[in-house]
Amino acid sequence: MKKLIKQKESFLNDMLDGLKYRDTQIEIIEETVAVRKNKRDKGVAIVSGGGSGHEPAHAGYVAHGMLDAAVCGEVFTSPTPDKVLAAIKATDCGEGVLLVIKNYAGDVMNFEMAQEMAEAEGHRTASVIVRDDISIDNEEQRRGVAGTILVHKFAGYLSEQGLSLEQIRERTEEMMTGLYSIGMAVQPCLVPTTGAYGFDLAEDEMEIGIGIHGEKGIYREKIETADSIVNRLQDEIFKHTDSSHLIVMVNGMGATPDSELNIVTKYVMEGLESKGKSVSRLLVGNYMTSLDMQGFSLTVVEHDDYLAQALNAPTESKHF
Amino acid sequence: MKKLIKQKESFLNDMLDGLKYRDTQIEIIEETVAVRKNKRDKGVAIVSGGGSGHEPAHAGYVAHGMLDAAVCGEVFTSPTPDKVLAAIKATDCGEGVLLVIKNYAGDVMNFEMAQEMAEAEGHRTASVIVRDDISIDNEEQRRGVAGTILVHKFAGYLSEQGLSLEQIRERTEEMMTGLYSIGMAVQPCLVPTTGAYGFDLAEDEMEIGIGIHGEKGIYREKIETADSIVNRLQDEIFKHTDSSHLIVMVNGMGATPDSELNIVTKYVMEGLESKGKSVSRLLVGNYMTSLDMQGFSLTVVEHDDYLAQALNAPTESKHF
Repeated sequence: MKKLIKQKESFLNDMLDGLKYRDTQIEIIEETVAVRKNKRDKGVAIVSGGGSGHEPAHAGYVAHGMLDAAVCGEVFTSPTPDKVLAAIKATDCGEGVLLVIKNYAGDVMNFEMAQEMAEAEGHRTASVIVRDDISIDNEEQRRGVAGTILVHKFAGYLSEQGLSLEQIRERTEEMMTGLYSIGMAVQPCLVPTTGAYGFDLAEDEMEIGIGIHGEKGIYREKIETADSIVNRLQDEIFKHTDSSHLIVMVNGMGATPDSELNIVTKYVMEGLESKGKSVSRLLVGNYMTSLDMQGFSLTVVEHDDYLAQALNAPTESKHF
Repeated sequence: MKKLIKQKESFLNDMLDGLKYRDTQIEIIEETVAVRKNKRDKGVAIVSGGGSGHEPAHAGYVAHGMLDAAVCGEVFTSPTPDKVLAAIKATDCGEGVLLVIKNYAGDVMNFEMAQEMAEAEGHRTASVIVRDDISIDNEEQRRGVAGTILVHKFAGYLSEQGLSLEQIRERTEEMMTGLYSIGMAVQPCLVPTTGAYGFDLAEDEMEIGIGIHGEKGIYREKIETADSIVNRLQDEIFKHTDSSHLIVMVNGMGATPDSELNIVTKYVMEGLESKGKSVSRLLVGNYMTSLDMQGFSLTVVEHDDYLAQALNAPTESKHF
């Protein structure tokens, strides 16, 4: 298997060991929990995490202005409740902890179990569940994908502004009602811990509406040009929103060349301009990946001035 | 061909159109030359460039503290002398222009031709040729690869310090005598303009000493674990230097998952520690890519305090 790893059993720990060298602002506690060395001494702590394989998510966003901790599970596998509890205990400075959970059964179960355990130990907690993937019709079943990074940023900003746990939860829930993502792939990911591809795609096919854990998309077509693909994704997104004030993220799935992300960006922005949309912040890069999948996702969030200010505020994360 | 492009003929222009949206600090002149909107009004201008396919190089480094302009050729193809001349004319504010050229026949010829044309028009110019790829034995024939980005940073810093054109050329030449890179690939790149792979690799093979234009490596082996591969590359590098003060870059080749770059980083840093090396700056990411090649390169530069300070100084480039 063509993977730059030592052995599949140590994938997660080796990766976190490397991350410690790369980002000297974080430390790893309890083996798999990334926390800020420079801990907050007041305000609400923001904690997220999930399975690995989405790097730089989530540990890359453990930084002033975004997350206080990221709980890192094995590849595409939810972290266990005890690790989430450790993150809560390490970051709570008395004003409570907000958990940002992507909508997957394992994550929701384990994070909520940790919440109960933490409450029993006297910590105040709240949680929000990100469901930005509009490729799933049923709103309750929508997965959390790249838009989660914008939730990290918004919640981190609200905490810096001194809002209470309940206020942050409410504002974040409200923001997520205007958050929409959809992704596509031209190549599936190869999972290092199993040696299996997420799905199979013929040499002339693309998959629309893919998940970030090797989940197949909602439909498959012959591959098209970048402008046509962008139109397809925008058409899906604009079934859900007619807002003309948007923040936009073009997210690489992990193995998409930067040149192709630029080409996609051209057609995204030209498409939005032709629809009369105004874009107050554009993010392009690898934010929420799926190992070595080739493809991209498009995220838009409706915003007012406050949200624009929040997402444009400084953070020490090198990845935002 | 599985590429997120509209058509191969417009690859370069489409990519630069997208880049303009992504980086609002630059503008594109003469169709393919990226320059800073906020032009310098004194000091030596630093200009680089070359074929495309290495994004974010070079246009991603057009920013305060690094480059004043990047001349962008077609994929893996040198830009023409008239475009290099345009970059010189657009950036020279009377104190001269330093050209940072990667050592490829086409680039050297076209940049030096532009230099002659510029001198004839009254511009003072100087050039340095980057030859950091130690996989080539003959020093004169060594290719310029990821170490070029450190040269951009150093030259940009020297210019900000107010050094003269000749001083910057001399200091940069001196820095490059201690600059060493070597790369490897587990998957070759697929060139969007030709539809051909750079080379063919069997399912269980890796290539050591690859170039960044699909050039084959110096030898091919059965794929090994990340720690063994790192050892191989470090062994090659430490044939050339015994310095114990290093700045280190772990560079992704374009389609290498961020998780695997972290794993490589672990073994790079553990290897250096075991050799008693001190690392004053570690850079990990996609700096000088080769489209969608999977693999990485390792760059080390010997440094004194001045060079460390220069490479750690702020730049407005989001990619450094």
